[in-house]
Amino acid sequence: MGTTPIVTGVDLGGTNVRAAAFDPNGKLLRHAQVPIQAAQGPEAGLARIKTLIETVLGQIDQAELKGIGIGSTGPLDRETGRIQNPYTLPTWEDVDIVSALSTRFSVPVALENDADTAALGEYWQGAGKGISRLLALTIGTGVGTAVILGGEVYRGWRGIHGEGGHHVVDPSGPLCYCGARGCMEILVAGPSIARLAQEAVAAASDGHRPAWVPANLSDIDARMVSQAARNGDPLASALMQSAASHIAVGLLNMITFFVPEVIVLSGSVMNDYDLFEPTIRSYLSQCSILVPSSSINIVMAELGNDAGVYGAAYAILRELDHQPNQA
Amino acid sequence: MGTTPIVTGVDLGGTNVRAAAFDPNGKLLRHAQVPIQAAQGPEAGLARIKTLIETVLGQIDQAELKGIGIGSTGPLDRETGRIQNPYTLPTWEDVDIVSALSTRFSVPVALENDADTAALGEYWQGAGKGISRLLALTIGTGVGTAVILGGEVYRGWRGIHGEGGHHVVDPSGPLCYCGARGCMEILVAGPSIARLAQEAVAAASDGHRPAWVPANLSDIDARMVSQAARNGDPLASALMQSAASHIAVGLLNMITFFVPEVIVLSGSVMNDYDLFEPTIRSYLSQCSILVPSSSINIVMAELGNDAGVYGAAYAILRELDHQPNQA
Repeated sequence: MGTTPIVTGVDLGGTNVRAAAFDPNGKLLRHAQVPIQAAQGPEAGLARIKTLIETVLGQIDQAELKGIGIGSTGPLDRETGRIQNPYTLPTWEDVDIVSALSTRFSVPVALENDADTAALGEYWQGAGKGISRLLALTIGTGVGTAVILGGEVYRGWRGIHGEGGHHVVDPSGPLCYCGARGCMEILVAGPSIARLAQEAVAAASDGHRPAWVPANLSDIDARMVSQAARNGDPLASALMQSAASHIAVGLLNMITFFVPEVIVLSGSVMNDYDLFEPTIRSYLSQCSILVPSSSINIVMAELGNDAGVYGAAYAILRELDHQPNQA
Repeated sequence: MGTTPIVTGVDLGGTNVRAAAFDPNGKLLRHAQVPIQAAQGPEAGLARIKTLIETVLGQIDQAELKGIGIGSTGPLDRETGRIQNPYTLPTWEDVDIVSALSTRFSVPVALENDADTAALGEYWQGAGKGISRLLALTIGTGVGTAVILGGEVYRGWRGIHGEGGHHVVDPSGPLCYCGARGCMEILVAGPSIARLAQEAVAAASDGHRPAWVPANLSDIDARMVSQAARNGDPLASALMQSAASHIAVGLLNMITFFVPEVIVLSGSVMNDYDLFEPTIRSYLSQCSILVPSSSINIVMAELGNDAGVYGAAYAILRELDHQPNQA
């Protein structure tokens, strides 16, 4: 009959939802993306997701859908298949996305945390391909970590996803909404770098404002800071240097606990990894006496915005068949 | 013929070596201990260990030895069965203990890091019995961690044992031999508490010396500090409070990364857990927004000095039979 077995990966974020169809060997066949418009409510949102999946499948001749994987911004409950995230998906209080899609498409559906699917994607087809001890660190709007051991997502007690991005790297640092002072996220996430820059400019005793600072201080964002650092601005350089030191401590701590073989970096702040790298390398080299910190391969993610759909597809493939590459 | 199948667990530390015989259900039948006198050289030391095992086995009627597990102070190489630890076992540069014992007793021999065997012991027959996500934290002369997942020791890349006791909790802290400033060990290990107390007394601007301070400042040890804190001494209380804060950050970080179900505490400093607990509980409760820090069961180890021999026995049982309780 010449049908093509397909799995679909869905990456559901606070702004957009992306879907892609893969063959079982990990070849991305088609993908598409639409705004999720979460505030219109889960019913409308689920309808958009269903249509998106149909659109992608409709572009493939004789597609035979085998399963759907979803990576979603959390909190969520993998076991019950529900998204409980009114924070970044307004009104999505308790949305049974797994039942909705499995009913519509009559296939198995898996739900995962999006930090885990992004890491699984890099493990399957990206920068961490086949690495048995893989750690993923994303620094963007927030800071997230995921750990992939032998191709499986590491899960804590009751399947809870660890929040390594909120581990404390400087207990005298600012207070984060997580409850702790000086976690990674409050020190090195994009909005954190922006806020620290706003505070530093406001506090400048001479009232001097560097040329890169916009009229409205609150318009400073992390990209402006990194650009100013590249142009040699001393204040911006000091801020980036401070962020580099905190990232270095965070990486050392992850290495000290997990001793991964590879750490995959992603997220908008990590686009400036070249600015952070000398500080990070020097620190990890200095602290490599008990653990091989300086030998751990630290690489940039390769799949960009597609990491999530790759990983979501891999998650359902794992569920369908524990040897997806041989499927 | 009525023989009793036995496994022997050996716990090799810098001062003593302990051996115990177990039945496959985890019943400790006999145990014995001798000083290792490492500086007399590995040959003499291995002879002492062999004699110790023979002594223990000789006390059991019709013992049929099935295997030997060894938990040793590291560094060591599990794969090659070699101890490479001239630091705490002077002259033990590259000692093939596995071959020495397997040749002598003609049974399989397993070698593990002693932090891992202590944790395995608590998992098998102690405070973490059957817990699928178990983290062990030992604070004594040093600070060590071990992670037991589904009854298996978590190992990093190339089987390397993580050194969570050297993860950074305060980057402005003192410099440790691990290369980092402000790791747990340099802040909360027994000798670290003692050193901080010596510095604090020496720095007291009024030259006042509390009654608990010995004539020679360098004679202050961690036990004196905790005892003085119990007696209401303000300086000692402040030092214990500071240690409690650092331990709290360390525990939060472990929870944030691993989300264990149970954390088992051991080591001489942890004998004062009651002094630390209010600070730790309050901090974990404050920081339980993203991870269930305040729900994690934090308990004291139950096997005391026997944890290592229990865990060493379990390690070889696992190798002999992946279902030791059904053996």
